[in-house]
Parts: sequence; structure tokens; C-alpha cells
Amino acid sequence: MKEISDFRVQLDVEEIPKKWYNLAADLPRPVPPPLNPGTKEPVTKEELGLIFPPSIIAQEMSTERYIDIPDEIRENYILINRPSPLQRATRLEKMLKTPAKIFFKREDLSPVGSHKANSALAQAYYNRHDGITNLTTETGAGQWGAALALACNIFEMECTVFMVRVSYDQKPFRRTVMETYGATVHSSPSAVTEYGRLLQKTMPDTSGSLGMAISEAVEIAAKNPDTMYALGSVANHVMLHQTVIGQETMMQLKKIDVEPDYMIGCVGGGSNFAGFTFPMMGEKIKGKNNCEFIAAEPKAAPSITEGKYEYDHGDTAGMTPLFKMYTLGHNFVPSSIHAGGLRYHGMAPLVSAAVDQGYARAVSYDQLETFDAGLLFARAQGVIPAPESTHAIKAAIDLALEAKKKNEEKVIVFNLSGHGLLDLGGYERYLAGAMQPSGKNGA
Amino acid sequence: MKEISDFRVQLDVEEIPKKWYNLAADLPRPVPPPLNPGTKEPVTKEELGLIFPPSIIAQEMSTERYIDIPDEIRENYILINRPSPLQRATRLEKMLKTPAKIFFKREDLSPVGSHKANSALAQAYYNRHDGITNLTTETGAGQWGAALALACNIFEMECTVFMVRVSYDQKPFRRTVMETYGATVHSSPSAVTEYGRLLQKTMPDTSGSLGMAISEAVEIAAKNPDTMYALGSVANHVMLHQTVIGQETMMQLKKIDVEPDYMIGCVGGGSNFAGFTFPMMGEKIKGKNNCEFIAAEPKAAPSITEGKYEYDHGDTAGMTPLFKMYTLGHNFVPSSIHAGGLRYHGMAPLVSAAVDQGYARAVSYDQLETFDAGLLFARAQGVIPAPESTHAIKAAIDLALEAKKKNEEKVIVFNLSGHGLLDLGGYERYLAGAMQPSGKNGA
Repeated sequence: MKEISDFRVQLDVEEIPKKWYNLAADLPRPVPPPLNPGTKEPVTKEELGLIFPPSIIAQEMSTERYIDIPDEIRENYILINRPSPLQRATRLEKMLKTPAKIFFKREDLSPVGSHKANSALAQAYYNRHDGITNLTTETGAGQWGAALALACNIFEMECTVFMVRVSYDQKPFRRTVMETYGATVHSSPSAVTEYGRLLQKTMPDTSGSLGMAISEAVEIAAKNPDTMYALGSVANHVMLHQTVIGQETMMQLKKIDVEPDYMIGCVGGGSNFAGFTFPMMGEKIKGKNNCEFIAAEPKAAPSITEGKYEYDHGDTAGMTPLFKMYTLGHNFVPSSIHAGGLRYHGMAPLVSAAVDQGYARAVSYDQLETFDAGLLFARAQGVIPAPESTHAIKAAIDLALEAKKKNEEKVIVFNLSGHGLLDLGGYERYLAGAMQPSGKNGA
Repeated sequence: MKEISDFRVQLDVEEIPKKWYNLAADLPRPVPPPLNPGTKEPVTKEELGLIFPPSIIAQEMSTERYIDIPDEIRENYILINRPSPLQRATRLEKMLKTPAKIFFKREDLSPVGSHKANSALAQAYYNRHDGITNLTTETGAGQWGAALALACNIFEMECTVFMVRVSYDQKPFRRTVMETYGATVHSSPSAVTEYGRLLQKTMPDTSGSLGMAISEAVEIAAKNPDTMYALGSVANHVMLHQTVIGQETMMQLKKIDVEPDYMIGCVGGGSNFAGFTFPMMGEKIKGKNNCEFIAAEPKAAPSITEGKYEYDHGDTAGMTPLFKMYTLGHNFVPSSIHAGGLRYHGMAPLVSAAVDQGYARAVSYDQLETFDAGLLFARAQGVIPAPESTHAIKAAIDLALEAKKKNEEKVIVFNLSGHGLLDLGGYERYLAGAMQPSGKNGA
């Protein structure tokens, strides 16, 4: 049964990582700092203090290689099924008749359905410790909102979520999940912020966007001293918190003596890709491995493959600092693809820097081909993947087929960032043949 | 960190049980056999051969204590995340301020959302080995249908599912799950069977029932030689296959040196309760433990607490043999509670015999109080439970509160048979305050 034992690699709860890993410590060139849009000077702690608590700001600006994970967070990581298993996609390999070995990391097993709670728990913990009682945020597909709702419930805080209108309408049950955990959810643009009311007036038919929802949440946080803002991706501290994924994966691969040739994650804001790849990327920078890191993005929001690496706002209203990132422009509104979590105009500064410095590359896919890949994966492995995660699956399948052509025994590891059980409307349309190629103009 | 290590007890894939356990071997009095409704004689293998293949019939009639699990099934059990973790409900204990220790078995982690694939994989495997190419079945909430759809896909068989009308309408996405795995799904009563057409004519407004859907599936199997019938609960062989749950649980409790005082499962047909408790119950019959086994049923279908222990049909049309079981009468149509998987008029003969012989007892709950329990559990542990599983949670909470009153350190272990992510319509109604007590007349 030795063979079977490699099909799923588990870790014990004691093996939940004790530190987060910070790629900023190892990138050869420093990551350009965020700028104040008025002065064009690097933003100060004081400026950030309007929406983030001191301990989060310290992490955001840190260049320390490792940051300790408090025991209380590690204990709550058990609730979200950390450490998550690493699984071999044996049936997918057989279906593809590939000599490649395919592994996937099971972030789908979290009760909130994705990797997002890795950072939500940390953010709620630090805000609570800094005396904050309310958190507010945006959510695209609802994955981040659900994660923050659970985290706030655990640390006994109030949670207000602005959910992008198209997802609010397409995925009503994600709202129910957030409400089950006790959060308050608004469809964005909403009537509860000044900016939301302005958008309702000027763009009454908009499907909303993450950029708009961020502006609404930031407005609430800036106006209320007991309320801070929590961000589900893009920021440095979010990338940091997610590195538990990659550290676990490295331990798991080591346990079965496997060296990955490729590590793949889908990218919207970049957090699951960063969390999954950065620990291994740090080793690569030190010359300890030769792994390739691939970010899979949607053609509907191709920030890396078609955007520019320049300073831009993180939100639509221009309320956030300027970040140096791959961006399509902060007014870009992606088409209404089902992968709502990938509908973002920019890319995390740390991921952008990794791409710029040659340590990661991106591929982009149309919605239809990612659903093809998702259906194949569901039938092979039983897990129905989130539309976001199907982008990583598509990239993994492409590499496995390339390995087949060249008859190479490559090792392909991807992050299954979430399950698709609350995205079945997308699968329903796909199975009915009603899904069109998305391109940049809607699906 | 020793304490943390008890919060979740894992097993390695090699520890997936190698045998199923058969309670029929250990019950002091034999289980009364099913009867031919015409002759009132025990049904023969030949009669059962019309809808079941030989290897399943052999298991159905077996009184052997252990039956080997083929390696091919064990390997596929990895796909459905076996062995599943046993988790300590530490936050729930704190919320209840109880000295009791509460553990729950994580059948919710299966990609099909419940314990059902434990038997679906076995049934598909044996049918395939006996040369059958098509399986047909009924499904209530859709949990069993999804499990059989996945299993048929894995063993390359066709799958046709009759889904109880009320669930088909309440839970459209369960149908999408089955179709994603490649199955064909009909709303029952349907137009594709004679019995279904009769029901459509005589009871046009019926919400359907498991009994009706069984009749439709059995009709299809009886008429087509390449098609057999697969049953999601009630039958002896289904109870058998589910015993992987209880065997794993016993290993896990042993690892942390814990003796359970109570083991609890919800009951519709009885399969998750049986699978969870029978291995431990077999030991109890031999005097090796003093655990109490509690079946939690809905007030809307209280077969044990309000039914009679007598011979009755398993389906509504009277096409199945007569089973000795606790039953409300095969024409009983339960109200449309959200726990669709518990809407069954009878109780598995093996579970019924265990109750009759004094080894298990039942409690019954109203829908509203089970959703109260479900919400409390979701906020405590992060997992949104299936409406069916909330019945077990309610029983566990009641016992934990009793232990608090008496200041006793009881150990309470329940089976979390499934998650509720495809039942969020029920939670939505509950949160909106629109859910009424169900009693026997609707919700």
C-alpha cells in the first residue's frame, strides 16, 4: 500500500506553520512602496492608520523574512481544516494519459470554501487585539466575504460586507453563508455610502466591480473610528498570511520526496497564488530549486498578460494609495464572468514584483475553456472546483499534455483554491450549452 | 501543543478499514427476513435478482461478521476523503459552558457533501463487476443521487436518478451536481415510468416522496436487464458499507484514549446512524463498552418514536418486498421539511432490530429547533451542517446541556453526516424568520 499512501499527503495539526513567510525579504530588488496620490511620496503609517490597525500596518511594511503566527490563530486554523491535504490527481493523470504527476492542494476543504480564511482569521485577530470592534470589506464572488464573516464571528466583531452586484445576484447563497455567520451584506454599489449613491445615480446599470466595492468599504472605515477595513487580496499582509499554504505544500512534497517542476495558482488580486508559491519562490531566489511559477488569469481581466506595470489606484474611486502593479487601469470593469473572484483590474504589488523580476509568469484563459477543464477535473477527482480555480486546473492540464507530447515525467502542483458548490449556476449554464466565450465583453 | 493535537484526529489512507462490519452477526436475535408480499414467504435470491446483482444480494443476506473491502473501492475511498477526520467541537463546548467533551465525525468533507458515497462506490463497483452497465435510483435531498452519480462516473456506468419533486424544486443545484458527474435526473413523480404517470394523474399536486421515487426507479430496473437498482439507505448491504465511518471513529477515539458515552446519528432510512454506531454497538453486545446509541429523527417522519414495528413495503407502490421495520405506513407522505433526506416512512430493518432489541433509542425534533441547533453549530465550528445532520447536533447539544446540569464529564460523539451548502435556501428562510415549526404538516 506504499503507492496509495502517496495519493494524499496529510500533516498533523502540530505541523500548522509557526511563521508566515515574507517574500519581500528575498526579492533581489525592493518592492516599490505605495504612494500618496496627492504628494506622490511613500504613504506613511499615519495615513494607513485611517483604515488599518497598527499591527497590520507593521506587517504591511515589514521586510522581515519570517513573522510569528500567534497560537490563537494557529488554533483557529484547525477550524478551517488546516493543515490541508495535498492530493495526487491520479484519475486526471490517467484520463490525460500523461507521464506527468499532478498534485493539488486542498484549500477547497475549508468550511468557507476557499483559502480566504487564512488571512481573514489573522486580520480579525490583529484588529481585535488593537481594540477594533467592527470590520468592513468588499467581496467579489463572496469567498472573501464569507471568510471574514466567519473570522469576525470567531473573534466577536461586527462585519459589514459590500458584495459586487453581479455576484450578489448570481450567487445569492453566498450572502446566506455570510449571514449565517452573522455578517451584514450590501449589494454594491449600495445606498449606504456616498460613493455608492453616486454610482447608483451615474451608472445605474453597472454590474459593479471589486474596485467600486473597495471604495465603499474604505469610505465606511475612514468615517468610523471603531471600524477598520479588511482587504481580501492585493495587500502585502494578505500575501503574507496566505503563505501557510505554500509552506505546508513544501513539507508535504518533501514527505514523499517529490520536487515540483511547476507550481500554479489562479490570480485575481493574487493572494492564493502568492500564498501557494512564495515560500518555494524564496528558495528559488536562493538557488535551491528550479521550479517555474505560473499565474493563471482570466482573459476578462488579464492584468499581467495585457496590463502595464505602473502606479495605479487599488480601487475605482481613487481613495486608496497608488500601488506599483500590473494594471488594466482602475476604471476597467471586467465582463461578468462566473469567476467573480478574479474580476480585478490590478495585481498584488508583491506578485507584480515577482513577475517583473522574472520569478513568475502568467497565462490567460477564456471562461469557456476553464469550465471545460473544471468539468473534466470534477469527473476525474470528484471535486467540483470554483470557477476561479478552474483557471489553475486549465494551466495544469495544458502542462500535463505538453509533458505527454515530450514524454517527460514533469511534476505539476496546483492550488485548488476553492470548491464550486456555491457557483453551480455557472455549471448549470455550461452544461446547458448556454455559456459563450467571455473575451472581455461578458458571459 | 499536545492539547491542540486532540482537536482533530486524523488517520492515514492506509488506515481506511479493510473490512465492513455486519451487525447481523452479533445481534442476539436474528433480523426477521424480508417477505414476498404475495406468498408471505422469505424472498429468494432469484426474486431479488430482478433488481440487484448477485454480489449485492449475497451481502444483503449475509450473516458473516466481516466482509472484505476490495482494494479498488478502498482506493476510491481516498477520492471521497476517507478516512475522514474526527474533530473536537471545542468552541461549541465553550459556548454551551458544558463539562462534556463533544466530538464530530467529518462526513461533510466528502466532495459529494455527505456519507452517501461510502455505499455508492461499493454498489457501483459490484454492479460493474457483475456486468451491469446502468444504475437507477431515487434521491430525496439529492445527497444519495449525487453520490451515486459520482460512483457511476468513476466505474463508467450510466446513472438515472428520480429526485423527489419537493427537493428537485427546493434544491435545483443538487441536480446540477448530479449532471456535472454525468447523470440523468428526473423530477419524481415523472413521466418516464408507468407508476410516475399514474401519480401525475391521481395526485397532480403531490410534493413527491422517497417511497414514490423508489417505485419509479425499481420499475425501470425491473424492466431493463442491463439496469439494476441502487438503494441509498434501508437495505442491509447499505448499512454494511457505511460501517467504515464507525470503524474509523473507534480507531480515532482509541488514539486519544477516549471512551464515548453517547454516539448520535440522524435517521431517515438509517444508513449514517448504522454506519456510525454499528461497529461500536457490536462491541457493546459483547459487553466491551457501555455506550448509548441515539437515533435523531424529524417529527415530520417519526418512524421509530411514533411508528409500529411490523412488516411493511419499502416503497409507496408496493413493489418492494415486505420489511420488518418501524414504519408509519408506506402511504405516509411526510411534510416538506428541508431535511429531505429524512422524509421516509420506514426505518432500516437492521436499525429497527437494534432498537427492538434494546441497543438503540430514538429522539425526535421539530424542524425549527434543529435549525436553531444548526445555526449555533455553524457559528461555533464554522461548518454549515446539512438540515439532516442538524438533528444529530440538536441531540448532542441537549445531552451536553444535561451533562452541564449534572456536572458530568460525558463524552458525546455525533456523526456530521453532511454539509448544508446546497441547502442554504432553508437557512435563508430560517434567518428571515419565515420558518414555521414543522410538526407533521409542512414547513
